[in-house]
Parts: sequence; structure tokens; C-alpha cells
Amino acid sequence: MYNFKKTINKDIPVPLYFQLKEILIYEIKESYLSPGDAIPTEIELSGMFQISRTTIRQAITDMVKEGYFYRLKGKGTFVAKPKHQLHYMAKIESFVDQIKKIGLTPKVKILECSVVDSNKEISSYLKIPINDKIIKILRLMIAENEPQGLVESYHPYDICSFLLNVDLEDKSLWETFSLNPLTKIFRVERTIESIIAADYESNLLKIKKGSPIQRISNIAYNQYQRPVDFSIAKFRGDRNKFTVEILA
Amino acid sequence: MYNFKKTINKDIPVPLYFQLKEILIYEIKESYLSPGDAIPTEIELSGMFQISRTTIRQAITDMVKEGYFYRLKGKGTFVAKPKHQLHYMAKIESFVDQIKKIGLTPKVKILECSVVDSNKEISSYLKIPINDKIIKILRLMIAENEPQGLVESYHPYDICSFLLNVDLEDKSLWETFSLNPLTKIFRVERTIESIIAADYESNLLKIKKGSPIQRISNIAYNQYQRPVDFSIAKFRGDRNKFTVEILA
Repeated sequence: MYNFKKTINKDIPVPLYFQLKEILIYEIKESYLSPGDAIPTEIELSGMFQISRTTIRQAITDMVKEGYFYRLKGKGTFVAKPKHQLHYMAKIESFVDQIKKIGLTPKVKILECSVVDSNKEISSYLKIPINDKIIKILRLMIAENEPQGLVESYHPYDICSFLLNVDLEDKSLWETFSLNPLTKIFRVERTIESIIAADYESNLLKIKKGSPIQRISNIAYNQYQRPVDFSIAKFRGDRNKFTVEILA
Repeated sequence: MYNFKKTINKDIPVPLYFQLKEILIYEIKESYLSPGDAIPTEIELSGMFQISRTTIRQAITDMVKEGYFYRLKGKGTFVAKPKHQLHYMAKIESFVDQIKKIGLTPKVKILECSVVDSNKEISSYLKIPINDKIIKILRLMIAENEPQGLVESYHPYDICSFLLNVDLEDKSLWETFSLNPLTKIFRVERTIESIIAADYESNLLKIKKGSPIQRISNIAYNQYQRPVDFSIAKFRGDRNKFTVEILA
């Protein structure tokens, strides 16, 4: 039977489920429990700590939601891998480069690359007339063979048509842009929102409907302040987090 | 009956629910539909656009999840207020100041302010010995009388004990810190994650369990690189978004 290093104290005014969470987080932080390890069942935990199964369930459910554990139907509850710490909100750097930097293997899958007409919303971001030709690219961002994000991006056709001849699964979009003085990115505005996955994203990202997603919208400008890229990236919230450093 | 400015085209290969979403978003963006307005019922929309109620429901449910609409039981579906655009991930600035800047009225409610012993996790962030005395503050951040965020913060007692004598509902924590050279903040590390609300947060933030939340963890340092504040802020995802500008 699993041996916990800490125990619950029923004499202090800290909720039992909260104490249990702290104990479980301690086991993970200290690497007594590693990614992929099964945790004891509700019945076992209830017996070990002498607290109700309702309390156990509350703690575990919280920790599943917070990304510490994941459940496999009929198999049990397991320790999740730590989230990727990305600097997407702090640096102009491709997903591919960020994933490489944390020692993992990135992959990009192009789901769509086509020429379409711009609608009112996209035109307002790209500062071009409505119905102008634009390039639409839909990419699935993958790390260690696990889908991480879905990026839908739009680019003005007149300066970006060369993208149609580039293998964007092989060369990142940012790298491609950087080779052309008209598309090299000098400034990006990003807005991050927390949303929950609808059917469409959950299927492509292989997560359950209702799972947390980081939605990041981006407008990237060239040196002449012209928008070169308007995109919406949806990253799996259970696998990714974004860090910034702010100086006074 | 409500008069939509655009219509659905069944002859193009764009899913009907997606076209309906674009039509509804257009009505909001162009201010034909304003915050608080009721939208037509499923039956009405189904009749107007000659598409199935299942398709209508898919579009509306998506838009509720994305924060465009909210539902009131037995009353209908209404247009939501636009999200607050905050610069919390880009600037060292209090929530109170950010909310004031966008022209709204902020309020802070102190739910707890006490002296506790530091645990292993908090000690590692504050770089102090385990069981050292710390100050714990739990604040509810409010804008226009609507709860927006819940902030749980921890501060080393030795340099922050003066906080116990300050009315933090009247004066912001950051403002208070800025008046003392030992606690004036010079650098902050923030990590943003998308999670979904458990019971605890949903009750305090007045949102449904399972709603999206932006969880932002912060470590703030004084000029001597000593951590003065370790905190976890949970903002309502349906009401707030965070913008940064990144230069190459």
C-alpha cells in the first residue's frame, strides 16, 4: 500500500479536503509520485486518512481540474505530466522553438492552407478592404506527439502569397516570415482569454468538451506597422502555462 | 420580430452553425445588439433562418461558452458585457488602478488577513524557512459591484507586518507596498493558466462550477531581489482578458 509522508490533522481549522490536496501536491512536488503513476483509489485513501469518500472525491476532482491528475475510465486516476512553461506572452518566438527549448520534440501539422476572401472582422485587424484576398492557415501544434494548440491565422495575400509555396510543416511560419523584409515581425499584440473547449477544439486537441483552453489572439506587425498576421491560437489549458517577467 | 442584417447561405461549404455565429457576432460588433439585450429564442431563430434547432443550439451554446451571451433560467439568452481588457500581464499595476483606467468603479473586499505559518511550497517561493511567520491575505476584487477575481497572497512577516495595520479595502496592497523601500516592488514573475472553477471559486466569484478561470500566480520582488509577495489570483474568464505588447 502507498505510503504517504504527511498526514491529516483533524484538530486544526483547515478543511480536510484542503489538507488532503496539500499532502498530494507535496508527494508530486517531491517526486514521490511521478507522471503516469496511479494514485490510490477513493476507498483506499478514505481508509488511509480516515476521512469520508465525499471529501476524498472533492480533493481529487479539484486536482483533476487543476491539471495535477487525469482520470482514465475504468482504470483509475493518474499523475499528469507537468505543464509546458511557455514564453509565448513574453517573446516573439515560434511554438516550435519554445517546445525545443524545453527539451521536447515539436511538430506542426497543416490542416488547411488556402486563399479566401477577408470578412469584416479580419479586415479590421489586417487593415485591408473587406473581400480582399487573404491566406488562411490552420495549424495543429504538437509536442511529443500530443496535440497542444490549434492556430487559425490570416495573412494579406499581396505580401504573403509566397507562403503558398513553403512547406510550413517543415519550416515554421515565423522563420519563413523573418526571411522577408516585408513580413519580418517587429511587434505583436496578444490578448489571452480563458475559455472552455467546444466540440470542434476538443476533437482536434484530444481533450474533453468543457476542458479549459487558453485562447490567444495575435496581431503581428512588420517594420512599417502593417499587420502581417492576425491569428487565434487555442492551447490546451491542462498542458500549457505562460510566463512573463515584468520590470517596474 | 428582430431583424438580422445578414443571412445564411446554404450554397457555400461553411457549416450553418458557424455562419449563424458570424451573423450574431456581427450584430454585437456593430452594436445592433447591446449588453443586456435578449436574443430571439431557439424556435424564433430556427424559423427566421430555416435551420434546425440543433444547429441553433450549437451556435448559441458555443457563444455562451465564449462569453458573448449568458443564459438566465426561464428568462432567455442575453448579450454579455464586453470583457475587461486588463494589462495585468504587461504592467506592475494594481487591479484597482486597471479597473479605474477603463472607466469602471473598483472595490476590494478583504475576506481574510491573518498571521499563519509558512508551508513548504510558500516558503520555496518566498525564500524563507518552513514554518516562518507569514501574512495571508484573501481579497475579492470587484468591478461595478460584480466579483472579478479572488486573490490569495502570502507575505514575509518580518518586512510586511505593517500590513496588519492598514485598511486594504481603502488603500490597495500595491500602493501600500510602494510607500516602503523594503516592500516597493521592482520585478514580478507571473504565470497564467486556464483552469475551470471548482465549488470554492464559483461561490465567491458568482459563476457556475466548470466556468473558465484565469489563474495567475505571481512572485513579486523588492529592489534587493527578495520576494515580498507570492500570490495566486483567479479571475473570471467570462469577464476579463489580458493584453500584452511584445517588441522584437
